[in-house]
Amino acid sequence: MYRKIKQRIFEIIELSKDGDKASKIFDIFIIALIIINSVLVIAYTFDIPLWLRKCFVYIEIFSVIIFTIEYLLRIYTADLLYPELSPVKARFRYIFSFMAIIDLLAILPFYIPLIIPIDLRVLRMIRIIRLLRIFKIHRYTSALSTILQVFKNKKHQLISSIVVVMILMIIASVFMYNIEHEAQPDVFDNVFSALWWAVATFTTVGYGDIYPVTVFGKILGSIIALLGIGLIAVPTGIISAGFMENIDKNKDNDDDEKCYCQYCGKKIK
Amino acid sequence: MYRKIKQRIFEIIELSKDGDKASKIFDIFIIALIIINSVLVIAYTFDIPLWLRKCFVYIEIFSVIIFTIEYLLRIYTADLLYPELSPVKARFRYIFSFMAIIDLLAILPFYIPLIIPIDLRVLRMIRIIRLLRIFKIHRYTSALSTILQVFKNKKHQLISSIVVVMILMIIASVFMYNIEHEAQPDVFDNVFSALWWAVATFTTVGYGDIYPVTVFGKILGSIIALLGIGLIAVPTGIISAGFMENIDKNKDNDDDEKCYCQYCGKKIK
Amino acid sequence: MYRKIKQRIFEIIELSKDGDKASKIFDIFIIALIIINSVLVIAYTFDIPLWLRKCFVYIEIFSVIIFTIEYLLRIYTADLLYPELSPVKARFRYIFSFMAIIDLLAILPFYIPLIIPIDLRVLRMIRIIRLLRIFKIHRYTSALSTILQVFKNKKHQLISSIVVVMILMIIASVFMYNIEHEAQPDVFDNVFSALWWAVATFTTVGYGDIYPVTVFGKILGSIIALLGIGLIAVPTGIISAGFMENIDKNKDNDDDEKCYCQYCGKKIK
Amino acid sequence: MYRKIKQRIFEIIELSKDGDKASKIFDIFIIALIIINSVLVIAYTFDIPLWLRKCFVYIEIFSVIIFTIEYLLRIYTADLLYPELSPVKARFRYIFSFMAIIDLLAILPFYIPLIIPIDLRVLRMIRIIRLLRIFKIHRYTSALSTILQVFKNKKHQLISSIVVVMILMIIASVFMYNIEHEAQPDVFDNVFSALWWAVATFTTVGYGDIYPVTVFGKILGSIIALLGIGLIAVPTGIISAGFMENIDKNKDNDDDEKCYCQYCGKKIK
Repeated sequence: MYRKIKQRIFEIIELSKDGDKASKIFDIFIIALIIINSVLVIAYTFDIPLWLRKCFVYIEIFSVIIFTIEYLLRIYTADLLYPELSPVKARFRYIFSFMAIIDLLAILPFYIPLIIPIDLRVLRMIRIIRLLRIFKIHRYTSALSTILQVFKNKKHQLISSIVVVMILMIIASVFMYNIEHEAQPDVFDNVFSALWWAVATFTTVGYGDIYPVTVFGKILGSIIALLGIGLIAVPTGIISAGFMENIDKNKDNDDDEKCYCQYCGKKIK
Repeated sequence: MYRKIKQRIFEIIELSKDGDKASKIFDIFIIALIIINSVLVIAYTFDIPLWLRKCFVYIEIFSVIIFTIEYLLRIYTADLLYPELSPVKARFRYIFSFMAIIDLLAILPFYIPLIIPIDLRVLRMIRIIRLLRIFKIHRYTSALSTILQVFKNKKHQLISSIVVVMILMIIASVFMYNIEHEAQPDVFDNVFSALWWAVATFTTVGYGDIYPVTVFGKILGSIIALLGIGLIAVPTGIISAGFMENIDKNKDNDDDEKCYCQYCGKKIK
Repeated sequence: MYRKIKQRIFEIIELSKDGDKASKIFDIFIIALIIINSVLVIAYTFDIPLWLRKCFVYIEIFSVIIFTIEYLLRIYTADLLYPELSPVKARFRYIFSFMAIIDLLAILPFYIPLIIPIDLRVLRMIRIIRLLRIFKIHRYTSALSTILQVFKNKKHQLISSIVVVMILMIIASVFMYNIEHEAQPDVFDNVFSALWWAVATFTTVGYGDIYPVTVFGKILGSIIALLGIGLIAVPTGIISAGFMENIDKNKDNDDDEKCYCQYCGKKIK
Repeated sequence: MYRKIKQRIFEIIELSKDGDKASKIFDIFIIALIIINSVLVIAYTFDIPLWLRKCFVYIEIFSVIIFTIEYLLRIYTADLLYPELSPVKARFRYIFSFMAIIDLLAILPFYIPLIIPIDLRVLRMIRIIRLLRIFKIHRYTSALSTILQVFKNKKHQLISSIVVVMILMIIASVFMYNIEHEAQPDVFDNVFSALWWAVATFTTVGYGDIYPVTVFGKILGSIIALLGIGLIAVPTGIISAGFMENIDKNKDNDDDEKCYCQYCGKKIK
């Protein structure tokens, strides 16, 4: 009986089978609360009248209580999530998982000031990360997992291209600093500023707060800007190839089932 | 006889078979009027002499009369467009279709001030949306429908990537607001401003009206700018794969002739 | 004898067979002159001492004489270029071809001031277009023609996407003008300014000379900026698919020749 | 015995077999030193206290000694790197290889001021180029070499597209200079400035330090900005196709097992 209730709680908060209405309602309720809380985090940054601000506090208290209960229930049922581990290990593993740490950080800011004074703003910021939970909604999960799959398959190539870009940016910014420092000592005051320029140029953002003014600086800047096109082209090429590969795989699987000769009836491969 | 005329009107305004000259002339006439009206909407924003402005009004009155007649004829023949519905339902369905609402909004601004005073500018703006009608021109329709087909096939993946980007932008802007608010209280005055920054950075537009100045802000900004490359790479990859898939499908149809069974050697399919 | 000389002149200036040294030398000589002239056009915009400027004039006179001779020889041998036309028609056809008009415009500025006074600057500008002749150099012609082939194959889709973008930009700029005109009457002074903003945003250039400041303007701007990603993604997707198709075709051709069964020796398709 | 030691030194500094621990430790040690030196180069541009600056000098001396020893050992073992050449030729060849020149330039700034006074800053800048050595780390080498392979395969097409872009940029900047020079004589002061504008626009960086203000300038600017999309689309398309081709090749190797003759039914290849 006791195990059944635990099993049911686990099903509701963690799994979400297709026909399970309670689980679906729970999911929607939690996500609604997360969205409302995110709206509050954003709303706090505007000038809002005092009575509304008070109203917000009540919603926040209510949310934190719900999130705390949810967090405790998740720890409680963690041994069902990792059945291969011992109950204690399972709980520890859950507590130190990425989403659990975010969940904890989302409720902590509420309890901490009761104990020690801390900069609330930093902790409130963390609550917005809970928005990542939205990705658990069903409908587009399949499309999303395709995208993630492509990134996973091409992980090594993408990381390689990022490392290349990083090193090129560091080299470019050291050169740019040395070229531009004399002409613009306030703008290119150290390599960090030059690196900020390199990022803005490589990614073609180009805010316009920092740019070369000397002839050599402009020549180097032009080379970097043109290489920036490469920065866009390489990951795009890798990811395009990844999506194509993905399609090919699906097609190959589809083809396997249909590959029979209609004359002799043998399977063709 | 009466039905024949109605059928003919319907053919002229709605369908456009290849050999139907009257329908083609009607199409070109309406599109020419739309383009002229769009030019007028644009021209009104310039300083134009009074006599030209008067001239414009006559063109506008003429256009609105034509568009009104066209609109009424379309409602009149709506039962031929949806033959499976009852005449009344067909007309209601047509009236509430997207293009019909645009068509109505394009002529309404002319009749409304006769009844109630309203901000004409807002309503005139709507007239420009009629430009979308141009897509009905024949010649490039096939190429356009290929592009639309690709978007349709990849709808789920594209929406997923947009949702991911939206959530990342919200999280990034809340962080950026908290990091930069103290250093630039006027620029990063609320999360909405930070969101505007996030859009400009993610899309690599970078107007330069808002950008981080603190060290942490620049680090976060750099990460967001580099992720922005991903924002470009993912939809590009998805769409590239979509176009490739499209080509493959056409090729598969061609390939059918070349498929042989490896056991009996007969042609398959 | 006379015909042979004409044939030889034609071979030298027009065709360039692999082993034909005279033709190659002529090509390099003309391209070198074009590059030198382009450098002169650029150099004129700098402050250069008078003696150098005089030197430039001599080079220019020499170049124009060579270009004039080349132009006349090309007209003279035009009947060999279009052997299917009558000599007179062939010459007219050549004279009105794109490159011949550019060639004429490149030498005209020299002769015109002898007859009528004209703004030399505009005509000198045209000389730089002759740089396009460089594309006739051999080595990378094959790669270049592959790129052109892809553009040709995908012409309809690319034009369609450009038309869609144009119309979206016009609609966006009319809306943006109406939204922002009141807040920034000097910046968004007419739809043309708004169109300039739309181009800068759609292409993600974002100079920062014009951008929305109102809330609605920023919302519309964000939508346009995100659609701008699509503007990049669609042609990239189309062109990627084009290059892939190109590779597939080459592979298919290669495969055809190699497709024999090594056991029975029959050709496989 | 002597040869064995030389062989062992060569293995440690040059080759890095999977099981060779000494070689691995040497690699990590050198790369760590390179990273530390790069950090120093960057740190020198900040205001650092004198005691730390002194500390830096000791690290630098130590690094230069190690790099010098490494450089000399590499020259010493160069005959094992190019076994087909005579020992003297092999050493010369090594000394004039790209990485060896960088290595020499990285240690030279230390010895030169002892002989002749020189601008140290320029030479210190060069030390940062040694960061390129990081690419020798094992783990992602395979992914990196795939990327390089794609660039190599598509070399001709990429160079062609760069040449086209260069020429278009030169033509665009000469036109833009002539259009804008009168309106903004200080900003568009010569074609070089206009070229800087063309690079910023073609690559969609758009710093905002230079942009057209006249009507014709904006029209030309719009065309260039839209062509800039092409600048991104073409290399992206080429590289995407390159990555796809790469995947196809790997797949073709896999497919070999599935190839059958349609006449005799035997497996081919």
